[in-house]
Amino acid sequence: MAVNLLPPEAEEVLAVAGLELGIARAGIKKPGRKDLLVMRVAGGTTAAGVFTKNRFCAAPVILAKRRVGDVRSLVVNTGNANAGTGADGLKRADQVCRGVAKLLGCNTEQVLPFSTGVIMEPLPVERIVAGLGEAIADLKAANWLSAAEAIMTTDTVAKAVSLKVKLAGGVATITGIAKGAGMIRPDMATMLAFMATDAGVKRADLQRMTKRVADRSFNSVTVDGDTSTNDAFVCLATGKGPVARSGKDLKSLEVGITEVAQKLAQAIIRDGEGATKFVTVRVEQGRSEAECRRVAYAIAHSPLVKTAFFASDPNLGRILSAIGNAGIAGLDASKVDLYLDEVLVARAGARSSGYREEQGIAAMKKPEFLVRVLLHRGRAAATVWTCDLSYDYVKINAEYRT
Amino acid sequence: MAVNLLPPEAEEVLAVAGLELGIARAGIKKPGRKDLLVMRVAGGTTAAGVFTKNRFCAAPVILAKRRVGDVRSLVVNTGNANAGTGADGLKRADQVCRGVAKLLGCNTEQVLPFSTGVIMEPLPVERIVAGLGEAIADLKAANWLSAAEAIMTTDTVAKAVSLKVKLAGGVATITGIAKGAGMIRPDMATMLAFMATDAGVKRADLQRMTKRVADRSFNSVTVDGDTSTNDAFVCLATGKGPVARSGKDLKSLEVGITEVAQKLAQAIIRDGEGATKFVTVRVEQGRSEAECRRVAYAIAHSPLVKTAFFASDPNLGRILSAIGNAGIAGLDASKVDLYLDEVLVARAGARSSGYREEQGIAAMKKPEFLVRVLLHRGRAAATVWTCDLSYDYVKINAEYRT
Repeated sequence: MAVNLLPPEAEEVLAVAGLELGIARAGIKKPGRKDLLVMRVAGGTTAAGVFTKNRFCAAPVILAKRRVGDVRSLVVNTGNANAGTGADGLKRADQVCRGVAKLLGCNTEQVLPFSTGVIMEPLPVERIVAGLGEAIADLKAANWLSAAEAIMTTDTVAKAVSLKVKLAGGVATITGIAKGAGMIRPDMATMLAFMATDAGVKRADLQRMTKRVADRSFNSVTVDGDTSTNDAFVCLATGKGPVARSGKDLKSLEVGITEVAQKLAQAIIRDGEGATKFVTVRVEQGRSEAECRRVAYAIAHSPLVKTAFFASDPNLGRILSAIGNAGIAGLDASKVDLYLDEVLVARAGARSSGYREEQGIAAMKKPEFLVRVLLHRGRAAATVWTCDLSYDYVKINAEYRT
Repeated sequence: MAVNLLPPEAEEVLAVAGLELGIARAGIKKPGRKDLLVMRVAGGTTAAGVFTKNRFCAAPVILAKRRVGDVRSLVVNTGNANAGTGADGLKRADQVCRGVAKLLGCNTEQVLPFSTGVIMEPLPVERIVAGLGEAIADLKAANWLSAAEAIMTTDTVAKAVSLKVKLAGGVATITGIAKGAGMIRPDMATMLAFMATDAGVKRADLQRMTKRVADRSFNSVTVDGDTSTNDAFVCLATGKGPVARSGKDLKSLEVGITEVAQKLAQAIIRDGEGATKFVTVRVEQGRSEAECRRVAYAIAHSPLVKTAFFASDPNLGRILSAIGNAGIAGLDASKVDLYLDEVLVARAGARSSGYREEQGIAAMKKPEFLVRVLLHRGRAAATVWTCDLSYDYVKINAEYRT
C-alpha cells in the first residue's frame, strides 16, 4: 500500500550506454522469484560508492567498498544479506565474484558484490553461482526495470527513475534503481541503490558528487531509524556519452543525479513498511544543518509521533516533546514555532491561540503533508522524509521470516 | 495485558509516618475517575528530586524543580500534562499550588505540582481547585495504593512497592508509587514516581542518593525511546523514624530505596503500552558503563528487534545490526558474542556453529528473557529493561485521545 507511488512504465526507464543488466531466478530464499542481478559495465567506466556505517557491515559491503575503483561488474542477490557471517561470509561473497569474473572474462577484484535479506544466515553460494549463467545470458541495456524488480524484498513497488541532462558536449542520461522498505535510516546511503550515467566523469569528481548526493537524498530519509548492515549506493559513469569536465557540466550532472536520487529515496519512504502517510519534516532557523537534521530525525523517529500520523490524530504535543528530546544544547523551547502544512499549531513554544483542532485533522488526513519547525536561533535548515507507524509495520516485521 | 504483574494487595503497601495522601475525582479529562492526588508531609521532611531533561519541560516540572527544598505538600493531576503551554501554563500550575497552600495553611512555595496526560492543552485549573477540598478531606497515611491508582493514565496496573530496612536506630519503612506506560525512556527519572521513607536523612545525602537510585532504576528502562516532558522522581524523608547518618545506614537505606525503585521501574515496563514480553538487555565487557548503556539502548529501541521479540521470531541478526548502529567508536564486530538466556547465538560476530533456531524460539516464547551481549573490550557492564513492540502499542497510541 505505497503512498502515491506507482511502478514506472518500462519505456520511462532509459538505457545507459555502456551498461547491461541481466536477471535470474536462482531460488535463493524462495523458488520462482527474480532474486539475482548481474550488471556489466564497459571498460573505462568510473565508479564511486558510499556504504553503511553500521559496524556489523556485511561481507559483500566490505568487498564492494574495497573494490569500488576499477569496476567491470556488479552482482546483487536478495533473500540473504550475508551479514553477521564473519570470515566465512567474506569467502562466500568472493566465491560469487569469482563465478562472475570467470563468465565475463574479467578479474575477481573488478566484481562488486551486494546482498540483501535475512541477517546471520550463510549465503547459499552454490545456488547463486548456478544462477549466474542465466543472468548473464539475459544481459541487455534495456533491462533496468526488470533489475529494479529483481532487487526487491519487502518492497511492494519497483523503484527506477531516469532523466536527461544537457552538458556542453551533448545530452547525458542518468538512470537509477533502489530497493528498501524497512531497516531504513541510511547513514551513508540507503539499503541498495545503483545509479549510472553515460557521461564521462573523473573518479575523484564522481566520488565527491556521490557523497553530496547521498547526503541530500538517501541520507535524509527514515522508516524506522534502523541503519541496515548492507546499505550501499553506487554511482557509475560509463563515459559513452558526453564528458563532464567543466564546473558547469559537473554541476548540471550533480543536479540531475540528485533529482534521481531524491525521487528514489522518497520512493523508498512511500513504499516504507506499512506506510499510509508520506511526511516531509522541515526544520528551519537552526544554528547548523546538523542540529536541524537532529531535530528532524527526533520527530521522524518518535514512535508516538509516527502513530499519531497513522491515526490522523493531531496530538501535536508529541512533536514538541520530540523536539525537546533532540538533545540540542541551549535550545529555548519558548521560541519554537510549529506548522502543519500552512497551519500554525504552536507559536513561541505553546499552542497558538488561533489554532483549531479541525485544521490539524484536515492536514493529517491527507496522504502527504509537511511538518515545519522554526527554531529561531540561526539560518540553517534541513529536510527529512519519513512515513507513519501502522499496524502493518508490526505485522510485516513480526512475520518477515515465516 | 501486563507481563507477570499483579496489582499489590492494600496491606502490602506500608504507611510512612509523617506522610498522608488524599484522592479526589475532579473530572479533569473524564468524569468519575480518580484523577487528583494531594500528599501532605510533616514539617522537617527533607526532599530530593530528579526531573526530565526534555527541553519542553512541563510547567509543573519547572515549579517542582525550583521548590524541591522545603516541601509540605505535593499535588498531582492526571488527564492533562500542562506541557507546551508557555507562561500561561506556569500561572495555572501556580494557581493549583496556591489553592493547596490555602487549604493546608502553608506557603505556595512549599507545594510541588505534578501533571501527566495530554500535551499542549490548557490545564483546567477551576476543576482541579474545586476538587482539592475532597482530596484533602481524604488525607490519611494508609492511602498509598489508592494514590497509585489516582496517578494512572494508560497504565493497566497500579504500581506501589514497600519494604523495611534495618538502620542503627531502628527499622525504617520505604514506600514508593509510580505511573507510566508509554513515552517511557526516562532521562532523569520516569514519568512520575514518588517515594517516601520515615528515616531522617540530610537533604544533601538524600539528593545524591536519589540521583544514583534513578540511574540504576528509572533511567535504565525504555518502552519507546520517547522521553516525556513531565518525568519526575521525588524522594521524601520524613524523619519520623530512625535517623540515617552513618555511612553504613545511608548505604542500607540506599540499597532499600534502589530495590523499591527498580521494582517500580520494572513494573512500568511490564505494564508498557502493548507489552507482551519483558526483556532484560545486559551488555558486558565494554570500556565504560556509558558505552554499555548505549549498546543496550540501541537494542532496546530498535523497532525491528522489538517486533521480533513480539513475534518470538529469533531473527537475531537484527540484534547484531542494532549493536553495529550504537555508534561505538572502534567497536570490533568480529569479537562480539550474543546470548539469549543461556543459549550462545553468535560468537565472534557470526552465528555460532552450535546454535539451533529451535533454541532461540524456545527462549523468545517465554514472557521474560535475557539478551546478553559481550563486547570483549573492557570490564564495564550495564543493564536496561524493555518490552516488545506489538499491534497494541500502535492501537493504544493511535487511539489515545479519542
